[in-house]
Amino acid sequence: MTLSAADALLAGNRTTLADYRATHFGWTVTNGVATIVLNRPERKNPLTFESYAELRDLFRRLAYASDVKAIVIHGAGDNFCSGGDVHEIIAPLIDLPMPELLLFTRMTGDLVKAMRHCPQPIVAAVDGVCAGAGAILAMASDLRLGTARSKLAFLFARVGLAGCDMGACSILPRIIGQGRAAELLFTGRAASGEEGYQWGFYNRLCTPETLLDEAAKLASELVAGPTFAHGITKKMLHQEWSMSIDEAIESEAQAQAICMSTRDFERAYRAFAAKSRPVFEGD
Amino acid sequence: MTLSAADALLAGNRTTLADYRATHFGWTVTNGVATIVLNRPERKNPLTFESYAELRDLFRRLAYASDVKAIVIHGAGDNFCSGGDVHEIIAPLIDLPMPELLLFTRMTGDLVKAMRHCPQPIVAAVDGVCAGAGAILAMASDLRLGTARSKLAFLFARVGLAGCDMGACSILPRIIGQGRAAELLFTGRAASGEEGYQWGFYNRLCTPETLLDEAAKLASELVAGPTFAHGITKKMLHQEWSMSIDEAIESEAQAQAICMSTRDFERAYRAFAAKSRPVFEGD
Amino acid sequence: MTLSAADALLAGNRTTLADYRATHFGWTVTNGVATIVLNRPERKNPLTFESYAELRDLFRRLAYASDVKAIVIHGAGDNFCSGGDVHEIIAPLIDLPMPELLLFTRMTGDLVKAMRHCPQPIVAAVDGVCAGAGAILAMASDLRLGTARSKLAFLFARVGLAGCDMGACSILPRIIGQGRAAELLFTGRAASGEEGYQWGFYNRLCTPETLLDEAAKLASELVAGPTFAHGITKKMLHQEWSMSIDEAIESEAQAQAICMSTRDFERAYRAFAAKSRPVFEGD
Repeated sequence: MTLSAADALLAGNRTTLADYRATHFGWTVTNGVATIVLNRPERKNPLTFESYAELRDLFRRLAYASDVKAIVIHGAGDNFCSGGDVHEIIAPLIDLPMPELLLFTRMTGDLVKAMRHCPQPIVAAVDGVCAGAGAILAMASDLRLGTARSKLAFLFARVGLAGCDMGACSILPRIIGQGRAAELLFTGRAASGEEGYQWGFYNRLCTPETLLDEAAKLASELVAGPTFAHGITKKMLHQEWSMSIDEAIESEAQAQAICMSTRDFERAYRAFAAKSRPVFEGD
Repeated sequence: MTLSAADALLAGNRTTLADYRATHFGWTVTNGVATIVLNRPERKNPLTFESYAELRDLFRRLAYASDVKAIVIHGAGDNFCSGGDVHEIIAPLIDLPMPELLLFTRMTGDLVKAMRHCPQPIVAAVDGVCAGAGAILAMASDLRLGTARSKLAFLFARVGLAGCDMGACSILPRIIGQGRAAELLFTGRAASGEEGYQWGFYNRLCTPETLLDEAAKLASELVAGPTFAHGITKKMLHQEWSMSIDEAIESEAQAQAICMSTRDFERAYRAFAAKSRPVFEGD
Repeated sequence: MTLSAADALLAGNRTTLADYRATHFGWTVTNGVATIVLNRPERKNPLTFESYAELRDLFRRLAYASDVKAIVIHGAGDNFCSGGDVHEIIAPLIDLPMPELLLFTRMTGDLVKAMRHCPQPIVAAVDGVCAGAGAILAMASDLRLGTARSKLAFLFARVGLAGCDMGACSILPRIIGQGRAAELLFTGRAASGEEGYQWGFYNRLCTPETLLDEAAKLASELVAGPTFAHGITKKMLHQEWSMSIDEAIESEAQAQAICMSTRDFERAYRAFAAKSRPVFEGD
């Protein structure tokens, strides 16, 4: 492939998102870390049709963003997200015909798919209420920091729905175990921060004061790592979900061989040989 | 579909089980909660060929029962279940030719399938000995309450068999993790109630005195919830077991759209708007 | 099948390994327990191209070994294994063309496959450093004993690689949960012995002084059990990895029917009837 062909390839597969202006949530990019803030704190940061669609579209564009290497998502004020807004989402759903209902559930599902398909690791910083679709956003992230006072509730049963929302019956059991997931999904009860930590939902508990700093620090550390390889790690965690072990091992042999032909792998070795710290560049 | 067509459809797919007379275990139905009692306490409630077959057939009929919305299963006296009876099951198995052996292992497996396919959530209340096929019955339930003194033992290895009994190699690792499951299945050792709780096998530990009340209360709370949606939750936890994440998300989009066209979903919204508590009716 | 046909079958499918002379690690067989010692303690027992290949070939031969019924793997000195040697593996990899890179990643993957396909349960005894490919060897074992001071690090990201190495993205999440696995694989951070135990990676923590004795004792207990059935347990834990529950239950019905026609099953019953302890013989 000539250089101009490479340029043509990149042109259709690279974009930058630092200047993206988000309409329905906060969005900033600093040193490769994008931060999404659900920012309607007076209502505990609910989601609306518009914010769902914008989040879905933005996560899809992140697959091609060259200036974002990790993502932090959190809520404004003392809460993460209260889920789908009762007035702006649940009320209109009551009257929709089936094709539109499916349009909605596919839209919300497509947001989770986009979160799982973008190469950047997503760090959810969870304080206060983390309920319904908010709990799903945390679940669909790669890493989760919580607070002791956080309340995690897959409360679909409380609004007359099933626990199978946006992938919850597939993903949640793999994070916290099938029995605990069944309890949360059948009953809709809130899990405390301590439970979430003991169960492996949260990687760590922080104080409300330090939560955002710790999430930003974790994201920055990921950005300082081999970000191309991180994207492969994320892709393979996704790909191997329902593979046999033998298939997974062959897939990993191929995927890791790709990573061994990156410059970051060589950089790590050179740094080690020089007894210095590697500086990764993501290629 | 005309009303008479609906009636015809229901006629072939609806039954009531409140008046069912169980032969080999206790069976009662109260306010939508069915209670199964394994009731040979002098032998720690073992299973026999007859009780296996009756349980299998009853759980299959539960798929069509309109008057049962949740199930509690427990043992009489201070034990849950000691598994397949040594004299009434293991002794005759020794001499059976292969087709009959397979008839037996398929019968026991069909019981677990029937437990997973009936729409009602099953709450196991586990005290004392919970061993062999008894441990499987607890594992195959949706929610589990235990006591500190309970002893959970997948003791197949102790009787010369493999740990792969009635789905244990598939289901147990997803509840307590692959490494802990391997230990229990290879060694047959008993896990304490505290271990079972820490590992996510039990959702909660109770005192022996309060165990049955708490199980009944949990089942009643489920019955007061959106029971049609609960059946969908249970079905999707089953369906998505070996799906990819993307497939699971599409399946959930369809399943949740179904639930959004139920009256219970509308009831929940109306109650919320009226600042009252929803009264679900399961349709 | 005549006896001579049986002999012919066994001739091609039976070997003994007690006299095997290992070149790149320690190997002993005592009372059915084989012990592998990674033995370059001055470098924390790294792996080399040669030791990878020899381990792979040996584990493949173990599928046919009649004199080995369980395996213990540990490191010489105070560490388990530091992973692929920086000088002997990473340095040459830097310059390899893609086909040779894939040859390497497939060789390492084939070691894990061979560990999962041999019928003997593998007990890893983990003290000190357990990093990179060393962490994989522990993960690919069936049971794991650790020490409080052990340091478990899937440090691939630290050397510019992805976490998808030798099956880690498939196997590790099923042992410790998806969220904890994601953290270890993305960050490469070391988990303490206590974390490893709480998460279900280690079945038990031991003191460094008792670690090897406890691992040997556990392996001996497995050897005293129904070893043919243990091989079936291991095979089914592998087979059912990505099966549906219904498929898994049918597979177990067949697999357990096989075990019910073994003499060990009968021996267990006869011992029980005689109120004695069964003596299993593995057939």
